[in-house]
Amino acid sequence: MNVAIIGGGAAGMTAASRVKALRPDWNVMVFEKTNFVSHAPCGIPFYVSGIVEYFEELCTYDTSFFKSERGIDVHTNSKVFEVGEGYLLVEEEGKERRYEWDKLLFATGSRAKRLNVKYEELDGVLCVNDISNAEKVKKLALKSEDIVIVGSGYIGVEMAEAVTRLGKKVTVVEIAERPLPEYDAEIAAIIKSEMEKFVNLRLGERVVAFEGKDRVEKVVTNRGEYKCDLAIVAVGVHPNTEIAKNFVKLGKSEAIKTNSKMETSKENVYAAGDCAESLNVVTGKQDWIPLATPANKMGYVAGVNIAGYELHYPGSLKSQITSFYDVEIGKVGLSEHEAIREGYEVISSFITTKSTARYFIDGLIHLKVVAERSGRVLGIQAVGKGVAMRIYAASALLYRGANVRDLFFTDFPYYPPVSRVWDPLVVAARNLFRKLGIP
Amino acid sequence: MNVAIIGGGAAGMTAASRVKALRPDWNVMVFEKTNFVSHAPCGIPFYVSGIVEYFEELCTYDTSFFKSERGIDVHTNSKVFEVGEGYLLVEEEGKERRYEWDKLLFATGSRAKRLNVKYEELDGVLCVNDISNAEKVKKLALKSEDIVIVGSGYIGVEMAEAVTRLGKKVTVVEIAERPLPEYDAEIAAIIKSEMEKFVNLRLGERVVAFEGKDRVEKVVTNRGEYKCDLAIVAVGVHPNTEIAKNFVKLGKSEAIKTNSKMETSKENVYAAGDCAESLNVVTGKQDWIPLATPANKMGYVAGVNIAGYELHYPGSLKSQITSFYDVEIGKVGLSEHEAIREGYEVISSFITTKSTARYFIDGLIHLKVVAERSGRVLGIQAVGKGVAMRIYAASALLYRGANVRDLFFTDFPYYPPVSRVWDPLVVAARNLFRKLGIP
Repeated sequence: MNVAIIGGGAAGMTAASRVKALRPDWNVMVFEKTNFVSHAPCGIPFYVSGIVEYFEELCTYDTSFFKSERGIDVHTNSKVFEVGEGYLLVEEEGKERRYEWDKLLFATGSRAKRLNVKYEELDGVLCVNDISNAEKVKKLALKSEDIVIVGSGYIGVEMAEAVTRLGKKVTVVEIAERPLPEYDAEIAAIIKSEMEKFVNLRLGERVVAFEGKDRVEKVVTNRGEYKCDLAIVAVGVHPNTEIAKNFVKLGKSEAIKTNSKMETSKENVYAAGDCAESLNVVTGKQDWIPLATPANKMGYVAGVNIAGYELHYPGSLKSQITSFYDVEIGKVGLSEHEAIREGYEVISSFITTKSTARYFIDGLIHLKVVAERSGRVLGIQAVGKGVAMRIYAASALLYRGANVRDLFFTDFPYYPPVSRVWDPLVVAARNLFRKLGIP
Repeated sequence: MNVAIIGGGAAGMTAASRVKALRPDWNVMVFEKTNFVSHAPCGIPFYVSGIVEYFEELCTYDTSFFKSERGIDVHTNSKVFEVGEGYLLVEEEGKERRYEWDKLLFATGSRAKRLNVKYEELDGVLCVNDISNAEKVKKLALKSEDIVIVGSGYIGVEMAEAVTRLGKKVTVVEIAERPLPEYDAEIAAIIKSEMEKFVNLRLGERVVAFEGKDRVEKVVTNRGEYKCDLAIVAVGVHPNTEIAKNFVKLGKSEAIKTNSKMETSKENVYAAGDCAESLNVVTGKQDWIPLATPANKMGYVAGVNIAGYELHYPGSLKSQITSFYDVEIGKVGLSEHEAIREGYEVISSFITTKSTARYFIDGLIHLKVVAERSGRVLGIQAVGKGVAMRIYAASALLYRGANVRDLFFTDFPYYPPVSRVWDPLVVAARNLFRKLGIP
């Protein structure tokens, strides 16, 4: 059997490994357009700030590991330009080659969105979601005095910390009225205060152009202009589905439609990772959730099914955590505005409390729980101290379809330096009891 | 309505507050034998080590708060010595008084077990589960040169860290072959190594006597003797049910039998906290789990039901976390040996891995997952770095009856400084897939 996998990122390499583990005698080919496989773009901010010293550390395993240890036929610098029934056309070493497949996996990932404004192609205007320009970003950041970051999603926030740590003057331009706009306003207000200690945060501003002679010199918005030697554009990602779109069905997001076995609309053709849609566990609808952990698990599930066994991917919760200096930030499921947009009738509780026993000197946690009127928990957001462990627990609860009673009664462990007898999650649940008429 | 509550600890004060919140016009009396209410004995080790400076910080609220803010009739230094149908006999200010009740709650807590060996009554031999002697323990610890701790359960381990932080020479004597004997041997081995860096850890030794002229001078075991100025006995607790035992039914543990409304065998009589049995969520059996968080929740549920509303306590998972210097320690549900003793046919996975992304310099986590052959997860233990967040998440999963597929597919958030793409919980689940024949 010939298995062809387009893309050597998280989903592709996980799937390839899984197929070879279950079917050691099958021929598993991976076609990766860059020089890197199994790369970890989530680490780029830490490489730029210097916490991670060497670029090589961002690649989990190198090509030779996959070839010799796992028996995968890895092709790097190998660009698939045509997909047909049972074959691929690939450009490798300047030549066009044809490969046959019995089973095919799209694992083509995503790419950074562009702003589509004037002079975006100037030198010094860069995106960071691709590992191949991580070194370039770092080199330029080190040489720069002023840096503008466009966008304050997760990557924007993490890059803002990274480059301020290098001692640079940083402006962050965000089109929405708050940073990390997926979060509700109460949570975003805390993030905003923290960011404003370190960067010039310009909210509600739209970038209209870049300017510069040989290279970028300033970013122009609808309300001002900001001098810079480097502009980092981090305004989200888009699924890489150009070569897939005429071959399999795409969803509304333009990512590839899949079922829980990661099968596409065409038999023996699968999709996994950032190029694929999957189920949103909270809404029960198809969604596009381009994150590393779901990508790996989709790859795993795709690999098992490609190998002829059966495993179902239950979907993702869009769980995320990050931090900005001393403030941890995390979210799972829906924020209140997302839930309302989805049509839910919601109740919510926002609390500010210590994350540890009262007599420990630690910070505050600000936590918001959003639930349906039925009591089912739709999402949990937090910012402050002790966020990661609450979002971890919240992910487990949401994955299992918990309601506010479960949130209240889950027996969280108490240890004064890290938690409290009445955990913030439990206190928020108790507040919701009142709104639901639970005594 | 007259509500009488015996015991002003976590369960008693939570129940009292709940009744007054729902029934402001009812008369709620609390009889507490010490001078303190709503005390937090879990904080004692941190008070002894000096992390918590003032003893007063260990009491969440003082008596006047409960009286004036919540309208609870709190009696301190008030010892109930007889419980009869509709009345209590209480010793207060040297006098015997009688109080009538329509509804009664036992919230009498637990007390430290004694060793019942020779000269245990010597000055300088102390227990620490009672807040009333926290100051005495601290004063003696500060004056001592050598300290022996008998027992290496949670309190023994925490006190060992506390007194070594004061610069004392410390011997810990444990009758079992490993510290924290509830944990399995693989996990306990890591704890043992860490403890041996700081204390003289004597495993498999039984204390046979204390010796000393005016006060304790040494602890004698079946295998040696250890000089000391202070001996701390931390060998577990026993439910305080002397006054309850002729009035309501006790369980095997000698704690009071309750149902999910915290009702005892007698109408209008409730029990909550360390003196009460409740459901073990994992085994589905009655169990005695004397811990702070369950005590508070049992108190809450008792209060609601006493007030004439209905709320059910689903039980506890026996979740616990602690630490010893740099090593975090945590457990939820059953260890393998506990599961086997309960009659389960078990499979397990023990892994050692980094708790963060590979390129972050942090420590290792050692994690063990125990499951039934059906796939249901029975317990999770961990030691090392990043333990609290995994045990928090594990508590949520076990509370919701998760199986190994849920453990694998829960969408835990990935942020390189605190977690990994393949979380240790997920890796352990994947190992169990193999044992269960999941591809």
